[in-house]
Amino acid sequence: MTDANRTETQEQRIPTLYLLPSTLADVPPASVMPQRNIEIARTVRHFIVENVRTARRFLKRCDPTIDIDALTFATLDEHTPASEIPAMLTPMERGADMAVISEAGCPAVADPGAEAVAVAQRRGYRVDPLVGPSSILLALMASGFNGQTFAFAGYLPVDPQWRTATLREMQRRIIREHQTQIFIETPYRNSKLIASLCQTLPREMMLCVAADITGPSQRIITRPLSWWATNSLELPRIPTIFLLYTDAPAR
Amino acid sequence: MTDANRTETQEQRIPTLYLLPSTLADVPPASVMPQRNIEIARTVRHFIVENVRTARRFLKRCDPTIDIDALTFATLDEHTPASEIPAMLTPMERGADMAVISEAGCPAVADPGAEAVAVAQRRGYRVDPLVGPSSILLALMASGFNGQTFAFAGYLPVDPQWRTATLREMQRRIIREHQTQIFIETPYRNSKLIASLCQTLPREMMLCVAADITGPSQRIITRPLSWWATNSLELPRIPTIFLLYTDAPAR
Repeated sequence: MTDANRTETQEQRIPTLYLLPSTLADVPPASVMPQRNIEIARTVRHFIVENVRTARRFLKRCDPTIDIDALTFATLDEHTPASEIPAMLTPMERGADMAVISEAGCPAVADPGAEAVAVAQRRGYRVDPLVGPSSILLALMASGFNGQTFAFAGYLPVDPQWRTATLREMQRRIIREHQTQIFIETPYRNSKLIASLCQTLPREMMLCVAADITGPSQRIITRPLSWWATNSLELPRIPTIFLLYTDAPAR
Repeated sequence: MTDANRTETQEQRIPTLYLLPSTLADVPPASVMPQRNIEIARTVRHFIVENVRTARRFLKRCDPTIDIDALTFATLDEHTPASEIPAMLTPMERGADMAVISEAGCPAVADPGAEAVAVAQRRGYRVDPLVGPSSILLALMASGFNGQTFAFAGYLPVDPQWRTATLREMQRRIIREHQTQIFIETPYRNSKLIASLCQTLPREMMLCVAADITGPSQRIITRPLSWWATNSLELPRIPTIFLLYTDAPAR
């Protein structure tokens, strides 16, 4: 191999966009993610993050010796115009690896990041998703509901009529397709949501409430709606996942 | 507190059913899961597993000093009658913690285990889902597709007419609900599946093929079906996840 060839090969190194999960709760990163993630967090110099302050704090918790001021951060959150995203990957044009970090949990799943991944895919870069905590996946595992087919819907509609229609469609998909239905709610509306589920759906429908996943007050409780109608969890400001399913035969 | 009271409190300790993910590929467990999982694998004595041989091998890789012959294993796979599952949790009646391990990845998600979790939930035991590799979640993260709403359908129907109808319904949910559609195929049918997607769906539909996730030949590639129609990946016997989405406006 000539020197010219060797240089060309180096220039053609395909950079990697890492998807680096962050902690869901205030726990040491190493308790909820593999050591490999910490090692990658140490080596990457350019980040696309949902929130610069939390990303810097997370990286410091991964390794207190990281020189945060030597790193670059581009902000990609729900307010970022799509047109600004391609330019965020400029360091990759020079062959540098980058990483996406969201506010909590896995980037691009119920969190920003997917648009940056789409740009990386279009440009033919490697995309490497790292293992980490996903409240949706952990809640599904612990619910006891059907994990052979399931759907995540994000937030339920706020409008009462539209919300009722959405819940009725979920009920149909549970019964006809045996598809577990997963959704979230703004924390301060959690109790109101449970009340509206009890009003709208049959009492034998099963509801799993998964709160503070991986945190010190983690609770994942599956009971029929008839139980939830008269019992309550204190869920004032805790991130919570809701799952619906029924074992009742299709009607 | 009297001795009698103290004994009663010990008897009332609520046991935990851990959901312990295993590796997807032939890699060291610590490279794809937190150290906490290894510590729990070391302490649990009673397991519910999809395959005893693979579970024993996985535990040995977690810690070669584990005395495998001192452990108990109950088999819960797709052939296990539902009526046999409650008795598998007998050690928990004596206050012992247990763990569920599936063949690869996260128990109870596209793998057996959910029925054992449902029994634990009904009995009021703690259920603790541990962080680990899920090929579905990792593929979704790396696809660049919508992670705000998505559905996993398991295997597509084998019958050609039913398969076409299923793909058309997926297309409707992508366009109307912007819901990413995720499914799997028996490895030896992977190439045939891609051909049938190209025949059934519009050429501008995007397909992500995610093969050998976390393994040495990991490839996660998102391209339009028009590209997949004339290009192929060699995917002879590799576990693969398929994802469909489109950025084309609703019609």
